[in-house]
Amino acid sequence: MCVPGGGAETGPGPLTRASAGGKLLAVLDAFSRDRPALTLSQIARGVGLPVSTAHRLVAELVAWGGLERGPDGRYRIGLRVFELGALAPRGLGLREAALPFMEDLYEVTHENVQLAVRDHDEVVFVERFAARDAVAVLTRVGGRFAMPPTGVGLVLLAHAPPDVQERVLAAPLTRFTAHTVTDPRRLRRLLADVRRTGYAVSDRQVTDDAVSVAAPVTAGDTVVAALSVVVRGSSAAAVRGVTPTVRAAARGISRLLQDE
Amino acid sequence: MCVPGGGAETGPGPLTRASAGGKLLAVLDAFSRDRPALTLSQIARGVGLPVSTAHRLVAELVAWGGLERGPDGRYRIGLRVFELGALAPRGLGLREAALPFMEDLYEVTHENVQLAVRDHDEVVFVERFAARDAVAVLTRVGGRFAMPPTGVGLVLLAHAPPDVQERVLAAPLTRFTAHTVTDPRRLRRLLADVRRTGYAVSDRQVTDDAVSVAAPVTAGDTVVAALSVVVRGSSAAAVRGVTPTVRAAARGISRLLQDE
Repeated sequence: MCVPGGGAETGPGPLTRASAGGKLLAVLDAFSRDRPALTLSQIARGVGLPVSTAHRLVAELVAWGGLERGPDGRYRIGLRVFELGALAPRGLGLREAALPFMEDLYEVTHENVQLAVRDHDEVVFVERFAARDAVAVLTRVGGRFAMPPTGVGLVLLAHAPPDVQERVLAAPLTRFTAHTVTDPRRLRRLLADVRRTGYAVSDRQVTDDAVSVAAPVTAGDTVVAALSVVVRGSSAAAVRGVTPTVRAAARGISRLLQDE
Repeated sequence: MCVPGGGAETGPGPLTRASAGGKLLAVLDAFSRDRPALTLSQIARGVGLPVSTAHRLVAELVAWGGLERGPDGRYRIGLRVFELGALAPRGLGLREAALPFMEDLYEVTHENVQLAVRDHDEVVFVERFAARDAVAVLTRVGGRFAMPPTGVGLVLLAHAPPDVQERVLAAPLTRFTAHTVTDPRRLRRLLADVRRTGYAVSDRQVTDDAVSVAAPVTAGDTVVAALSVVVRGSSAAAVRGVTPTVRAAARGISRLLQDE
């Protein structure tokens, strides 16, 4: 996991020398998908600060609205952070431009429809629609995933700066299924295909029964996001059927972003 | 606008005495729906700090991922805040429980479907679906609105603590249309109706051509959110048609939250 400035990752100790602002951000970083609710002592331990210091920082964050204390006495991320996050152009801002197109895609396919952006070497999912009977996927809104095996990740990696591509190709590639591409030369060819054809197909690379078809969303000349539909199985017909629809929707969103 | 700890509201000066953490949060507070992109000097002016101090705080937030600098040199809220905001139980957490029900509501009505929570004396919209041809509404995800005139606000106010109700009833009620209820005694009766019937109808109180039907979402005995469908016009038949559907969906979400 790549968490920029993730104080929780640094272990106890060093934060006692960090700036007061840095300590405050480290308290927020202690919260994650896996640890969404924490007691005061868990926070103190997580960020490596005395309980008294953690208490003062938590009180400051609660007063601001960045943390909320539940009836169980544990702290969770507060509504103020959600509200501020809605202003992130690459978060809900992008999502608002994409939403009508994603709703249309969802209505015509009733499959998983996903929108993602690149953050450092990972994808972050900005929006996701899923029918209850659509094939299961491993992603959640606000969640992160490795780039190489996902459809949206292939699109984002194919259009990432060279240093990002080289770093990802040089690192070990995690195997999720028997179909996951773990050979960097094969991945390099896949990325060239994505640039040439204008879309990516991830064939059962994340789970055994799902294929993702993804297309780039651009603002001007820059690829800012990727849109995908994840369908069950791997029939060529299903992929062929969904590809033009995904590409058209991605172009529609790009046109909206262009106009801004 | 009620912004907890909103540093931008306090004007220049007082922040020079605030804690370093408080200054950092004030920099984030400088960003809003109306001001989503700011230059360094706009930030410094907004929070009332010297440019040199603002520069250091902004650099700290950029390194953390809380701010991003665009090609135009202006700063915007970063992906890290969106990602953390996705952990807010009253934000995307609630949204994930509600999403399948909201999708169903949207498919059967093709009207505006909205999910909102109360924050202090206002509603904050957590999710919203709208067909392109549905009646126009004034809300956005992550946006705030006054409680009294909206359907979701009537539900949330009817179930708010007495001190919140008294404060809202004592304050001047803003008129949006000729139908907006601005008489506190009439509003008090409306709230009693909401508690008695289990749902709220806001009849053209926000815009001249929209009626909202809203129902409470509960976790245990507590009303934690409100779900609404906003339909065009004010025909009694349209309202009657949509009411049981909204109430059933709100109960479905409540059942999910109960189980957690």
